[in-house]
Amino acid sequence: MAEFTVDPYADRYARRTAGMSASEVRALFAVASRPDVVSLAGGMPFVQALPTEHVLEVIGSVIAERAEVALQYGGSQGSPVLREQLTMLMGEEGTVADPEDLVVTTGAQQALDLVGKVLIDPGDEIVVEAPAYVGALTAFGAYEPRFVPVELDDDGMIVERLEEALVQGVRPKFVYTVPNFHNPAGVTMSRRRREHLIALCREARIPIVEDNPYGLLRFEGEPEPTLRSMDPQNVIYLGTVSKVFSPGVRVGWALAEPGVLQRLVLAKEAADLCSSNLNMLVTERYLSGERWRQTLHGLVGTYRSRRDVMLEALSEHFPTDATWTLPAGGFYVWVTLPAYFDSANLLAAAVERKVAYVPGTAFYPDGRGRDRMRLAFCYPTEERIREGVRRLGELLSDEEELYRSLSG
Amino acid sequence: MAEFTVDPYADRYARRTAGMSASEVRALFAVASRPDVVSLAGGMPFVQALPTEHVLEVIGSVIAERAEVALQYGGSQGSPVLREQLTMLMGEEGTVADPEDLVVTTGAQQALDLVGKVLIDPGDEIVVEAPAYVGALTAFGAYEPRFVPVELDDDGMIVERLEEALVQGVRPKFVYTVPNFHNPAGVTMSRRRREHLIALCREARIPIVEDNPYGLLRFEGEPEPTLRSMDPQNVIYLGTVSKVFSPGVRVGWALAEPGVLQRLVLAKEAADLCSSNLNMLVTERYLSGERWRQTLHGLVGTYRSRRDVMLEALSEHFPTDATWTLPAGGFYVWVTLPAYFDSANLLAAAVERKVAYVPGTAFYPDGRGRDRMRLAFCYPTEERIREGVRRLGELLSDEEELYRSLSG
Repeated sequence: MAEFTVDPYADRYARRTAGMSASEVRALFAVASRPDVVSLAGGMPFVQALPTEHVLEVIGSVIAERAEVALQYGGSQGSPVLREQLTMLMGEEGTVADPEDLVVTTGAQQALDLVGKVLIDPGDEIVVEAPAYVGALTAFGAYEPRFVPVELDDDGMIVERLEEALVQGVRPKFVYTVPNFHNPAGVTMSRRRREHLIALCREARIPIVEDNPYGLLRFEGEPEPTLRSMDPQNVIYLGTVSKVFSPGVRVGWALAEPGVLQRLVLAKEAADLCSSNLNMLVTERYLSGERWRQTLHGLVGTYRSRRDVMLEALSEHFPTDATWTLPAGGFYVWVTLPAYFDSANLLAAAVERKVAYVPGTAFYPDGRGRDRMRLAFCYPTEERIREGVRRLGELLSDEEELYRSLSG
Repeated sequence: MAEFTVDPYADRYARRTAGMSASEVRALFAVASRPDVVSLAGGMPFVQALPTEHVLEVIGSVIAERAEVALQYGGSQGSPVLREQLTMLMGEEGTVADPEDLVVTTGAQQALDLVGKVLIDPGDEIVVEAPAYVGALTAFGAYEPRFVPVELDDDGMIVERLEEALVQGVRPKFVYTVPNFHNPAGVTMSRRRREHLIALCREARIPIVEDNPYGLLRFEGEPEPTLRSMDPQNVIYLGTVSKVFSPGVRVGWALAEPGVLQRLVLAKEAADLCSSNLNMLVTERYLSGERWRQTLHGLVGTYRSRRDVMLEALSEHFPTDATWTLPAGGFYVWVTLPAYFDSANLLAAAVERKVAYVPGTAFYPDGRGRDRMRLAFCYPTEERIREGVRRLGELLSDEEELYRSLSG
């Protein structure tokens, strides 16, 4: 009998697993769940605001009336009625969509995975924002692309940089962007940048993957048109009900032209056969009627107040040479610290002081971001946000003092 | 502005999409749902037998007591309590497992996808049974392996053939098998074959992927030990609650040694972040207490009677030179027709006569199986099974007559 080494499979893993590592965001979940730690880390929606009685009613009626469907397998493309509801959701931001062009996925995360599966061959270039949503980096990363990060600023992706990259010979399979209330940066792509991006990608025949989980969480100002509404043929649009209803039902979707859609449906079938009928029926019933709007309106108000509190606390407690973004919606503030800070190294000390955040390095495919941190204002109460930012500010000023004393 | 061709992305798809095609099983879902067609095609569990009142109670108590958890994101590995329940389920067949070694997946289908993602590089050989579960062929297929099909007979995979293949230089990344009540073949691997397979794979250092969705649906006789229980270190075990509870909750799992498990969890996170907390809580509550056993016991009785009816109807209505397997559990009978039949071509005529099945070709990676068909007895009533087999028998005998008149 052969003697096994410690990991008998060590020489058996697929090459793509070399790039897989535990994300810093997820690793923090355990820490964040300790009640004495103020977590400004995880992007968990404030589901406590959902009306439990109403959700109970919704789920009860699904089982009472449609148990045989709810508990059975469904079709790979997802429930037709739900797909209609999701086009209605997209309509709220002016996106016109046909339910036939949509596949329901296990959250928008699965849509990212399926897009990667269908479009990326090893070595393909794909453009991502710098910083980018960490879950997109891991989903796409499994298909072994070469990431081409394009910087963003307060107006979103700096499309001029993308244009330069194309001139220099970059030929990406697609451009991935979170144009509204960016994760982690909190910024929104300006109208001018959207127009530039659309024209540039159409001309170069590069599909755009538009990921829009936060679009309906706008605190102020007028919405910009979605990229999909500006060029339906060249934009694959990804959405989710995680932020307007609940991430617990794992309902997201991709909207794409027929050729791409057909492959996404086949990839969905290969990945998990179909989404949960129970969850799809619950979601479609939750989104029927008008009650969900009222609940969402309340939620947006809560998030707005929490954002205000966080920005105020940052002004009060953070070093004067730190800067941060001013999100007009969504979940996140993105902080840039003076270059001598290392947010990845600081995390352990922060957790010791009972506060958590996500170090900037999680959001770059190339190790950058040590002077950045993502702060989420979606989940903790105003009081805890204030306290969390205060604790962080105190840590930073202690560190600053230490730095000055060592270098002075 | 560039002019797009019909599919503007035609030159953009990843190479792996070349192997993606709509599965015959899924394509039949639309047909099967027409009430005048007797579907012997889909492997849908008879969820009508679930006690709706009890399920309602379970779901109601989950929302009433744990809404904040049920509607929130969960951890990538899955709910710890559910993982304990799932080890209890495995214990029913004598498999000893630690909840820490288990990752919850979106049905066992996702476990197949994640195993493929973690282990298969393009061009790698993997061993599958011939015939094999179609969903495994599509899940693994996305990672571009070379399939090495090994024939099975009434005692399951013919392990001697695998041994020959290894002697001839085949070096598979893993061996995939459904040892109990095989899909589509209905057969169960004998004790002797299990022992042979375990010894052979351990010696050759080839991991076994054991897929056991039907193990608890035994109609008669004593269960064989699971492969996992015979060699925990070298077997990755996949399970699902789809057949013992409901496929609508999309709860499956993989049990693996720490090195593999860690990569499966990372791949799960990249694929869809986490399974649905709502579904996980509902499943863990359904599996607590003893009620589920009673329901399962009743279900097994129903399936047994339906199997009996199908076998009887086959004897009565099918050509005397057709043969079929005698499943001691599960969902399927596998029919071998005389070689002049082409079950793929016959399907349209069958549907015209209001009966559907899955042509054998769906279950081979290499185009074989035209003289085979899979008949599922799990879902239709006894009366409809009788009528469906009668319709099919009639079609076959008309075809036989036509063949004899043309060749006679």
